[in-house]
Amino acid sequence: MEKAQERLDNLTKPPGSLGYLEDLAVKMAGITGEVFPDISQKEHVIMVGDHGVVKEGVSAFPQSITKAMVKNFLNGGAAVNVLARQYDVNISIVDIGMVEKVKEDGILNANIKKGTDNLLVGPAMSKTEAVKSIETGIEITEKLIKEGAKVIGTGEMGIGNTTPSSAIIKAATNLSLAEVVGYGTGLDEKGLENKKNIIQRAINVNQPKEDDGIDILRKVGGLEIGGMAGVMLAGAKARKPVLIDGLISAAAALIAYLIEPKVVHFLIPSHKSVEPGHEKLYQFLDMRPMFDLDMRLGEGTGAILGMGIMESSNRIIKEMATFDTLDF
Amino acid sequence: MEKAQERLDNLTKPPGSLGYLEDLAVKMAGITGEVFPDISQKEHVIMVGDHGVVKEGVSAFPQSITKAMVKNFLNGGAAVNVLARQYDVNISIVDIGMVEKVKEDGILNANIKKGTDNLLVGPAMSKTEAVKSIETGIEITEKLIKEGAKVIGTGEMGIGNTTPSSAIIKAATNLSLAEVVGYGTGLDEKGLENKKNIIQRAINVNQPKEDDGIDILRKVGGLEIGGMAGVMLAGAKARKPVLIDGLISAAAALIAYLIEPKVVHFLIPSHKSVEPGHEKLYQFLDMRPMFDLDMRLGEGTGAILGMGIMESSNRIIKEMATFDTLDF
Repeated sequence: MEKAQERLDNLTKPPGSLGYLEDLAVKMAGITGEVFPDISQKEHVIMVGDHGVVKEGVSAFPQSITKAMVKNFLNGGAAVNVLARQYDVNISIVDIGMVEKVKEDGILNANIKKGTDNLLVGPAMSKTEAVKSIETGIEITEKLIKEGAKVIGTGEMGIGNTTPSSAIIKAATNLSLAEVVGYGTGLDEKGLENKKNIIQRAINVNQPKEDDGIDILRKVGGLEIGGMAGVMLAGAKARKPVLIDGLISAAAALIAYLIEPKVVHFLIPSHKSVEPGHEKLYQFLDMRPMFDLDMRLGEGTGAILGMGIMESSNRIIKEMATFDTLDF
Repeated sequence: MEKAQERLDNLTKPPGSLGYLEDLAVKMAGITGEVFPDISQKEHVIMVGDHGVVKEGVSAFPQSITKAMVKNFLNGGAAVNVLARQYDVNISIVDIGMVEKVKEDGILNANIKKGTDNLLVGPAMSKTEAVKSIETGIEITEKLIKEGAKVIGTGEMGIGNTTPSSAIIKAATNLSLAEVVGYGTGLDEKGLENKKNIIQRAINVNQPKEDDGIDILRKVGGLEIGGMAGVMLAGAKARKPVLIDGLISAAAALIAYLIEPKVVHFLIPSHKSVEPGHEKLYQFLDMRPMFDLDMRLGEGTGAILGMGIMESSNRIIKEMATFDTLDF
């Protein structure tokens, strides 16, 4: 990191004048151990899971959208596909907990459970299933890294999954419901109140232990959230940067942090979403997101845009001239 | 713009969930008159000029850096070159007011004056020179558009040019010195106080008319600032989006706005820089920058990053699937 800073200070610009692009170059040196890290192969993992709590009306969209959107991913028509093409990022789509099986080629079948159980009435999953979801994320990521992945993005699909995400944040941070619960993909005011009520009741019923990532994941989490936490832990272990996307991905980062606090040094937050819990969680984890474009889609759309900024930072430290080459 | 909004609302995502990317797609439809505008050919114009006021110690760098950096641009070693390569943007470098001539090929020679006069003791330039600087920007832009430019970025180089930029903002908005004057490329506290003092005295001496863009440009502006204002006016007339970069580029937008207020509808602010006057000016012009990465380099580095976000927005409206194609 010191060598990266020294290099940046010799580039043909006033010291520090590229702001975050310079900070990120220093951080990337710390993550990878290289002043000029290779970030050529960019991979993005979309974890897909369903949620038993959707029967409580916590989402503006029906559960069948999960499967329909997976087919859309496979056909290249979703927002995340469009952005991945722009930034030359490969996408892996993982069924880690869908209710309905998708038969088309191209989806990685790692289904642990056909959707979580309703967290309003008991744990979302067993401890074994929670651990398995994290292990699944680790295994997939280790394979991607073996195949050349240098940077990994995290994204998800799962109708209803802002509810377990906000519940995870509430359980671990004890912030107020108003601070951590938002409109998701499009609830109205009444829907928001219902969602807050369900999250509080789920915590009362399940009593997750605030410093136990596996316990929180099991009781009020989701399979795709555990999967993303696994991606983060495996990326960190291999010294590869992992990008955080929106609220759900950040909730996975919180689970990973509770399991191993050092993981945060290998995570790169991308955007700050419209969901209030996202910003609060970044404050809790002492992280600064790159940008705020009022996005709230998920899939990893923010993470992919973040890879574009990461690429800029990487090229700056690699390609800019140094002052000693200037001709006065 | 209505047709663009309708298209966006039919794409496979919750309405509005891509936030700014959607807002920009609608704005681009308004600018170009096309729901699916062609933004393939991206051009970036760097206007270069020197400033008589540097003899008052307003910059942390010597005037000779202007010429050295132009050579760096020509060699492809500056930050703006690196980012332009990433985002496939062509760069034009224009000597509109340098003290020292650069003899290398590749620079567009449109020199009006060998640096401005010292605005502390009188007008920075004559009215004829001010008008000529704007006309130069218009001519260069009209030629670029004739050659296929679809999007145009504005950038600059000129040691000392945050001083005329802050003076322009002060003259037109009457905001306080604390609100519009910053550290530039690296002044210390004493240097900042000196800069504020010089800007106030320059306004007292020159008495620029607050609603007269040419008068302000002439008295406390710069040749590269007039050049960029010309780029913006010509882009707007041809219905091509023009990206604003940092403080100096935004000061040019203010000059263009005072000449023709409708120009702002064709301007796309990119980043919010560290300079305090930048944010204040965006508020004055009712503009929202895309992102804040703590940058303060100039050259158009923020504008080029903004073109990446613009490309994302453009691809989203063009390439995403619509809900009627989804398979439930």
